[in-house]
Amino acid sequence: MASLIGMAQNPVEKTAVTMLGLGAMGTALARTWLAAGHPLTVWNRTPARAAALAAEGARVADSAAEAVAANTLVVVCLLDDASVDEVLAGTDLADKDLVNLTTSTPAQARARAEWARERSARYLDGGIMAVPPMIGAPEAGGYVFYSGSRELFERHQETLRVPAGTTYVGEDAGFAALHDVALLSAMYGMFAGATHAFALIRKENIDPASLAPLLADWLVAMAPAVHQTADQLRSGDYTKGVVSNLAMQVAGTPTFLSTAEQQGVSPELLSPYFELMRRRLAEGSGEEDLTGVIDLLVH
Amino acid sequence: MASLIGMAQNPVEKTAVTMLGLGAMGTALARTWLAAGHPLTVWNRTPARAAALAAEGARVADSAAEAVAANTLVVVCLLDDASVDEVLAGTDLADKDLVNLTTSTPAQARARAEWARERSARYLDGGIMAVPPMIGAPEAGGYVFYSGSRELFERHQETLRVPAGTTYVGEDAGFAALHDVALLSAMYGMFAGATHAFALIRKENIDPASLAPLLADWLVAMAPAVHQTADQLRSGDYTKGVVSNLAMQVAGTPTFLSTAEQQGVSPELLSPYFELMRRRLAEGSGEEDLTGVIDLLVH
Repeated sequence: MASLIGMAQNPVEKTAVTMLGLGAMGTALARTWLAAGHPLTVWNRTPARAAALAAEGARVADSAAEAVAANTLVVVCLLDDASVDEVLAGTDLADKDLVNLTTSTPAQARARAEWARERSARYLDGGIMAVPPMIGAPEAGGYVFYSGSRELFERHQETLRVPAGTTYVGEDAGFAALHDVALLSAMYGMFAGATHAFALIRKENIDPASLAPLLADWLVAMAPAVHQTADQLRSGDYTKGVVSNLAMQVAGTPTFLSTAEQQGVSPELLSPYFELMRRRLAEGSGEEDLTGVIDLLVH
Repeated sequence: MASLIGMAQNPVEKTAVTMLGLGAMGTALARTWLAAGHPLTVWNRTPARAAALAAEGARVADSAAEAVAANTLVVVCLLDDASVDEVLAGTDLADKDLVNLTTSTPAQARARAEWARERSARYLDGGIMAVPPMIGAPEAGGYVFYSGSRELFERHQETLRVPAGTTYVGEDAGFAALHDVALLSAMYGMFAGATHAFALIRKENIDPASLAPLLADWLVAMAPAVHQTADQLRSGDYTKGVVSNLAMQVAGTPTFLSTAEQQGVSPELLSPYFELMRRRLAEGSGEEDLTGVIDLLVH
């Protein structure tokens, strides 16, 4: 009984975290660590943002160098890659566990991993698949892609999963950014498609709120088509399991373009994909699925 | 007991259906009515396709005129609107219930409704949200949009829901086609986005089958964003509930374009949407959501 009480009074010590960058995302991340009982040291270029967190229990460092010196685990969430250079310029990163959640391209992430290695820091890059309101709300489904040092990821996984889910995608430090950009690019494509759909009904007596559930359900039902695409890419057989082949789909495109014209909607968001479908068909791939369009996109 | 046996021997009579057009979709529809016990008369320009259905119990008419004469409910599923003209040219449509499932634009559907009225036929237009394997498989989630005569829709709803779910979208005969085109246009946008995503990983040691579930889950999670878009469109307030505003999203676009360039991927499927985002931002709408892009698309 005494030992149980002792355990309750001495819970497992939470990893101390240093957090550089307190924009909307950095602040949301910092708050979840504070709320979960992690000792937190923060620094931000604009001190006012740190003051709010101080009231919640954070230690505010006077400089980035002081913040980095305070703890082994250093999480960075800044505006862009150039800001990482500026902020970490005068800091001693030797033997630090650097986790960079700043939005980057894969090339920037790889260069930053090399840069960290030169400074004797371990490096993990992250790509955040969430907006700030989803941080600390696991039911919202947000998560962070991580890539780089697997050892570093495993060592800090418990701490990293406090603000959001974690998905490790490989030792190549650029892979988190690549996955992040790939998913968000696909999302923008879906948003572009939905934009065209809402534009089509603009001049009709149709409530956008009656179209929205039909649109959402249809997109949700069609999204799993990417599994078949992946299967075809792996096998190299783009006719595998095809239902509506490229020739049939290209034959259907005039209906889409005529409808856009009738409704006074510019086809600019649809026509680039249709144009690639036509080019692929012209190569003699009419029996294939749409997968071959991917080949045309890569130089 | 005798009356119960009598009921069992005389089940409620199923509506007889005439089906014109036995392509992959027409054949799939016809099979479900046959299997459900509906007397079926079929006609197809190429007689071989009708022969297979005859073996399953369909009556094969020698001409479109004979098929139309056989039943009140006449379902048409042909290649295109021009084929509807050709096939129905010599038929007597007076007092027929014409259900046209041929792919059309809204303008074609409206003209066809007027054309049917001139021939004293009742008219219902349909837009099929399914591929043939989804017909007769309710768990697959396919359905058909109907618009035009509500009375006709209600009279035949039991029969129409045999092959697939039914969603009635209004008296305007063009609305089924418009909803069909709107949802499929949005789907092509999503497919274009997924195409870009798969292209981005082409030169990396990343299995497309490991990207696919991440991609599908992300698209499914993001699809409900269209509800917020609809809400903003209804209120006219495009800043309502905004989390990541247009200015922030435009600031993020260079990362997407640089990543595409680094991976040797043409930006042609992404840049038209980004360009519209930039144009909208230049109009001073940085605090808005992405919804304002819809305004730019409609003349």
